[in-house]
Amino acid sequence: MITIPPALQPPSRLLLGPGPSDAHPRVLRAMATPLMGHLDPAFLVIMAEVQEMLRAAFRTSNRLTLPISATGMAGMETCLVNLVEPGDRVVVCNAGFFSNRMVDVAQRCGTEVTEIKRPWGEVFTFEEIAEVVRRVKPKALGVVHAETSTGVLQPLDGLGALCRETGAMLVADTVTSLGCVPVELDAWGVDAAFSCSQKGLACPPGLSPVSFSQRALDVLHNRKTKVQSWYLDLSLITQYWGQDRSYHHTGPISMIYAIHEGLRVVLEEGLEARFERHRRNYRALRAGLEALGMRYVAPAAHQLPELNAVYLPAGLEDLPVRKRLLEDYGIEIGGGLGELKGKIWRIGLMGCNSRADVVYSLLGALERVLVQFGVVVAPGAATAAAQQAYAAGN
Amino acid sequence: MITIPPALQPPSRLLLGPGPSDAHPRVLRAMATPLMGHLDPAFLVIMAEVQEMLRAAFRTSNRLTLPISATGMAGMETCLVNLVEPGDRVVVCNAGFFSNRMVDVAQRCGTEVTEIKRPWGEVFTFEEIAEVVRRVKPKALGVVHAETSTGVLQPLDGLGALCRETGAMLVADTVTSLGCVPVELDAWGVDAAFSCSQKGLACPPGLSPVSFSQRALDVLHNRKTKVQSWYLDLSLITQYWGQDRSYHHTGPISMIYAIHEGLRVVLEEGLEARFERHRRNYRALRAGLEALGMRYVAPAAHQLPELNAVYLPAGLEDLPVRKRLLEDYGIEIGGGLGELKGKIWRIGLMGCNSRADVVYSLLGALERVLVQFGVVVAPGAATAAAQQAYAAGN
Repeated sequence: MITIPPALQPPSRLLLGPGPSDAHPRVLRAMATPLMGHLDPAFLVIMAEVQEMLRAAFRTSNRLTLPISATGMAGMETCLVNLVEPGDRVVVCNAGFFSNRMVDVAQRCGTEVTEIKRPWGEVFTFEEIAEVVRRVKPKALGVVHAETSTGVLQPLDGLGALCRETGAMLVADTVTSLGCVPVELDAWGVDAAFSCSQKGLACPPGLSPVSFSQRALDVLHNRKTKVQSWYLDLSLITQYWGQDRSYHHTGPISMIYAIHEGLRVVLEEGLEARFERHRRNYRALRAGLEALGMRYVAPAAHQLPELNAVYLPAGLEDLPVRKRLLEDYGIEIGGGLGELKGKIWRIGLMGCNSRADVVYSLLGALERVLVQFGVVVAPGAATAAAQQAYAAGN
Repeated sequence: MITIPPALQPPSRLLLGPGPSDAHPRVLRAMATPLMGHLDPAFLVIMAEVQEMLRAAFRTSNRLTLPISATGMAGMETCLVNLVEPGDRVVVCNAGFFSNRMVDVAQRCGTEVTEIKRPWGEVFTFEEIAEVVRRVKPKALGVVHAETSTGVLQPLDGLGALCRETGAMLVADTVTSLGCVPVELDAWGVDAAFSCSQKGLACPPGLSPVSFSQRALDVLHNRKTKVQSWYLDLSLITQYWGQDRSYHHTGPISMIYAIHEGLRVVLEEGLEARFERHRRNYRALRAGLEALGMRYVAPAAHQLPELNAVYLPAGLEDLPVRKRLLEDYGIEIGGGLGELKGKIWRIGLMGCNSRADVVYSLLGALERVLVQFGVVVAPGAATAAAQQAYAAGN
């Protein structure tokens, strides 16, 4: 016989890693809402509202804009399986853990992938991308807008026009950018974008918002083969989210409640105010981390404010420090992925966690822990630097 | 500018369709729990507890037993994409909407599918399955244990031995059976099973529990090709759920909280008591529906207690009746799928909704609505019949 485990006794946590970030209290309350049917007329209204708010967040008028019923990585797979077919060529700008995954996912679709590689933490120039895209003439160009493994913001300017010129679909990973920094699907000419619920939107993980342009819909409708994933087949999913409302899978009701409330919070604040808040708290955090002697992985001009990837102070071990932060202060920060494992920390200030009081909590705790591990720091120096940067403010 | 929609104002609902069924109040409360990181040591304990409780619910010792981070249909896809490769032969017992989907999903894996067909609502004999499996010698045999479109319970007895004899993997859809009727993965020799969270486990939709036998793991580890879905690749997912705890995707924290509490509720009641409760309330409902002149789709000996598919009374239209039930009484029942659309209703008594008071609510409301639509019924006859059957009880 099994021994039934006790009820959940979650420890108190402040989630400042690469995600999940804390869900907004209003979102948590929405999660406890009793269910309704996934075809209930009242639920269909909620779905339409979620789509309309997602369009506003993505800054797009794309009709096909909806949350996929799975986490962010399923959004990446959704964009690729729907747009490419076996034998197609795909170009991926690869300078991080998540662009590396895009290569893997594209290859599993039977495509021939050309990688444009740069060391992790670097940014691609328009020219080097254009050279390869014009030469290879791929079906899709995959770019990670916000690379969660390095903190790099990759500009997408010009890539939409380039893809129109060469007949490619522009696929953008906005998992860590949506709701934190500007994402302009229509202005940039992005054909397929995917994101997540648990970062800039301050919801629990479990949904992946995606958006497809009319060009991308045309490609989808002119496929020669069926989409290899039944669950992620947008030609079926849109029959549920579209006019037909015909059953595909059972929508994750509670998560739709959550993103409905999360998007309301985002839009009530206003996107521009939200972006500015993320930038301001980032400047404060950055000043504090630099006062502690830490160096960023990404060039400053291309640093994501919501995800700070910094090298560990010399001689320090990764895990013991993070363990101390978690156990003594309830604060979670993230370690490095892949080739940066053990070398960097990833500190997130996302959604409702991008606040000055959060910055001070983290810096005060981190400074103490570093001192305990033998790093020489003037007490309070990090906080003082952050306060000054915050006051310099807008 | 977008007009921000108002906060959720969900109507009161009693969910008696094919699923989602209502989530247990304790599960709803768990959903509102603040997040922790998906690699937090405290979360890893919760994951291990969920696995252990799922094994108890599935009655298996399979190490690979875990919830996939997506809804039930993704579980079907998970079982197939991991076990079969392009060119493999698959046999599917097809007598309903969901077995039909299994054919589609298997074909999208590039397999050659042989269907054993029966009219919807019928049950396959062991002999007819054995004849085809021995002749075709497939890589996998797909069977729907509980067919949600017809209410049929398909016995799996003998199929495990048959599959061992012929070298096939036995894949079972237990979406509508887990937590409602006995599911005996080990005793039956099932190699890959999938289910959902929103029916017998009384959680919101969003997870798909799956379980793989050692034989299935061997097949997975000896594949010649990569699993075509990155998101559903169990060789990667098990690195997160297994000893390594290495990052694959961001687990849906809140849904894991939910299923943790949902499984605690299931095991506190006890599986046998739970099955008996489902049978007893089914007998009451059946007596009531038959008193209203309704006829079941499935043969009585193979009727699922948790899902009652019944033909509409002659001359009645489907949608207006269900609309009236929903609007006047807040009660949702389901319509038919595919070839049974407009012809049947599907009435679920699942998880925490399998209760005598729920049976009386439904019968009282349905009887009144039927009278309003011109069906001749002696007032209270349905309830009286249900009361009598319930009292005859255990």
